[in-house]
Amino acid sequence: MPQLSKKGIKMPASPIRKLVPFSESAKKKGRKVYHLNIGQPDIPTPDVAINAIRNIDLKVIEYSHSAGFESYRRKLAKYYQDINIDVDHNDIIITTGGSEALSFAFNSCLDPGEEVIIPEPFYANYNSFAIASGIVVKPITSRIEDGFSLPAIEEFEKLITDKTKGIVICNPNNPTGYLYSEAEIRQLGEIVKKHDMFLFSDEVYREFCYDGEKHFSAMHLEGLEKHVILTDSVSKRYSECGVRIGALISKNKEVMATAMKFAQARLSPPTFGQIAGEASLDTPPEYFTGVYKEYIARRNFMIDALNKMDGVYTPIPKGAFYTIAKLPVDSAEKFCQWVLEDFEYNNQTVMMAPAAGFYATKGLGRQEVRIAYVLKIDDLKNAMETLDMALKAYPGREI
Amino acid sequence: MPQLSKKGIKMPASPIRKLVPFSESAKKKGRKVYHLNIGQPDIPTPDVAINAIRNIDLKVIEYSHSAGFESYRRKLAKYYQDINIDVDHNDIIITTGGSEALSFAFNSCLDPGEEVIIPEPFYANYNSFAIASGIVVKPITSRIEDGFSLPAIEEFEKLITDKTKGIVICNPNNPTGYLYSEAEIRQLGEIVKKHDMFLFSDEVYREFCYDGEKHFSAMHLEGLEKHVILTDSVSKRYSECGVRIGALISKNKEVMATAMKFAQARLSPPTFGQIAGEASLDTPPEYFTGVYKEYIARRNFMIDALNKMDGVYTPIPKGAFYTIAKLPVDSAEKFCQWVLEDFEYNNQTVMMAPAAGFYATKGLGRQEVRIAYVLKIDDLKNAMETLDMALKAYPGREI
Repeated sequence: MPQLSKKGIKMPASPIRKLVPFSESAKKKGRKVYHLNIGQPDIPTPDVAINAIRNIDLKVIEYSHSAGFESYRRKLAKYYQDINIDVDHNDIIITTGGSEALSFAFNSCLDPGEEVIIPEPFYANYNSFAIASGIVVKPITSRIEDGFSLPAIEEFEKLITDKTKGIVICNPNNPTGYLYSEAEIRQLGEIVKKHDMFLFSDEVYREFCYDGEKHFSAMHLEGLEKHVILTDSVSKRYSECGVRIGALISKNKEVMATAMKFAQARLSPPTFGQIAGEASLDTPPEYFTGVYKEYIARRNFMIDALNKMDGVYTPIPKGAFYTIAKLPVDSAEKFCQWVLEDFEYNNQTVMMAPAAGFYATKGLGRQEVRIAYVLKIDDLKNAMETLDMALKAYPGREI
Repeated sequence: MPQLSKKGIKMPASPIRKLVPFSESAKKKGRKVYHLNIGQPDIPTPDVAINAIRNIDLKVIEYSHSAGFESYRRKLAKYYQDINIDVDHNDIIITTGGSEALSFAFNSCLDPGEEVIIPEPFYANYNSFAIASGIVVKPITSRIEDGFSLPAIEEFEKLITDKTKGIVICNPNNPTGYLYSEAEIRQLGEIVKKHDMFLFSDEVYREFCYDGEKHFSAMHLEGLEKHVILTDSVSKRYSECGVRIGALISKNKEVMATAMKFAQARLSPPTFGQIAGEASLDTPPEYFTGVYKEYIARRNFMIDALNKMDGVYTPIPKGAFYTIAKLPVDSAEKFCQWVLEDFEYNNQTVMMAPAAGFYATKGLGRQEVRIAYVLKIDDLKNAMETLDMALKAYPGREI
């Protein structure tokens, strides 16, 4: 048989899906599995989006413009202008999810062998896109003891080589829930300017900021128009992950012209998804108020429940809908598998994502899990109670 | 400003879109432009697909399985079984268009610097996907004088090096309309087996075969289960290019497991598109009879009209809905631009794709254009009349 590619062999399996066979078998045993492992919200998609789809009046589902419908890009530009991000529709390419936006950005800015620095733990698929594009991720460790705040700028500078082309951040952060402060974003701005690098900012959780904290976008940095590349998505904002619509945004015309060639190669983003995405921009403000209240209640409940458990610690996440918790176990990976395979409490069990998969440095995150608070409070209650009992019963307990 | 990637700079602009500014300006002058440059059919999407979308009853538009809905994959497996392609749902990954299927295949099977052989002229985006993946395309020339039939196997063997990992074909072919015979596919089968390579077969035009010719799929080859990788799409079959749904199909479990890691990285294919694609499998047979009749009438009319023009030659395409025509001009590129910029006949003009963009070998296709017969007969009549007049008036005419 012909050989597979080395990069294909190197591609990691998704850390949030590795345990799927065990959750399937738990379900086969009749157990209720609480899914805290994946960022699939249970919040309804806005009616305006669903209705736009139900009312489509098209005879031929044609390719759209490779950059996406102009009407959508114009309306989306308005959304950004309203949050003081000064772009017009020519600074936007509609993509197939935020994933494709990052692929276009990597392919447009980096050649195989070149490097990006990413604070770890980070969204595991950044690694996959890097491998697909042949680029190298240099992790810089943020620590649970520091609440996952930005590592010191000197630490970044130590990692910069002549192959370094940029820094990637996710703000608010998946998997930590950390919200970067304006001061931190400005520090990143200084360093990318000083070393003439790109700043790739993934801001798909922009609307999910808690405790009165304000989101400061990398696009708010003055004088960095050539450096900042924003990736975005409608998935979480409107709870419509399945529409697969994102966007690549930059004031750097050369980057956008190059990304456009990659966009043309794949012809166009999905038509129906664009219709839903465009309609979603008319979502009434009450929707977001409701979503905000729901998430903050969930977060408060969950963080409190976790920190009350003996030997468990998690910082208070200020954004997104994830937290990383440190558990008193020998190995979070073994523990997560054990909970699904060998444990039940009132015929329930929980599925979490072992955090080691979000670190690029081997050995880190051994005792940590990522938990997504994407379930209703009642379900979260059951899930937390189950987790507490599991920790007490786990044979590999370790403080 | 930070530098762009070399691969980004190397990415070609789409050959079918280069002339867009000229067609826009022709439209601004009030001229009717007949679009023969792009494979966007005017055929209505089947009602079953549109209705499935109009009747969706979902509260949350969630991610689907990364390989696509199981129900869709099972039904699609049945479609293949009905055309004697022996696959089940585990041999299928639903992708975002045929484009993504080819990207997954390239990334799973080839590392940067490795090579594929592709008969030219070929679908220009194969080049783009190759550049994005860092792989090298070795073109093998098929000639208009031979009706674009498969080059001799000895010619392939001359191109094979220790870096060659596979051969890519498109059957029926875009841009030539050539339908490979069973004997030709068997020859390709022999050579990929002998040299232990992959055969990447893009069969998105499978249903578009004329004159009683039967499609012989690379998947029909016996004993080549580990070698053959099929890419497919619903775009042309059901005239629903905008849904962005394709598929990667192979009996090679290792390839599929590797492709699945790339699929997981981008989370899932579009939900609405999958709903339309799945529903499209219930398209009644009359739809295809109607489409077939329409295309064969268009083809016959157009080929006849072209070959009647003084100095023009085109072979009779047996599949897809394109043909390559050789024109009596100094440069098809200049001619196509001139027709849009400086010519009108009854206030009409035509847009064609200069064929040079479909050849990887510099200098080839200088006098050739690709013409898509995706317009109604009446429009084709006007378009052909306009082309005839343009050829007569063109200052760079050359026999």
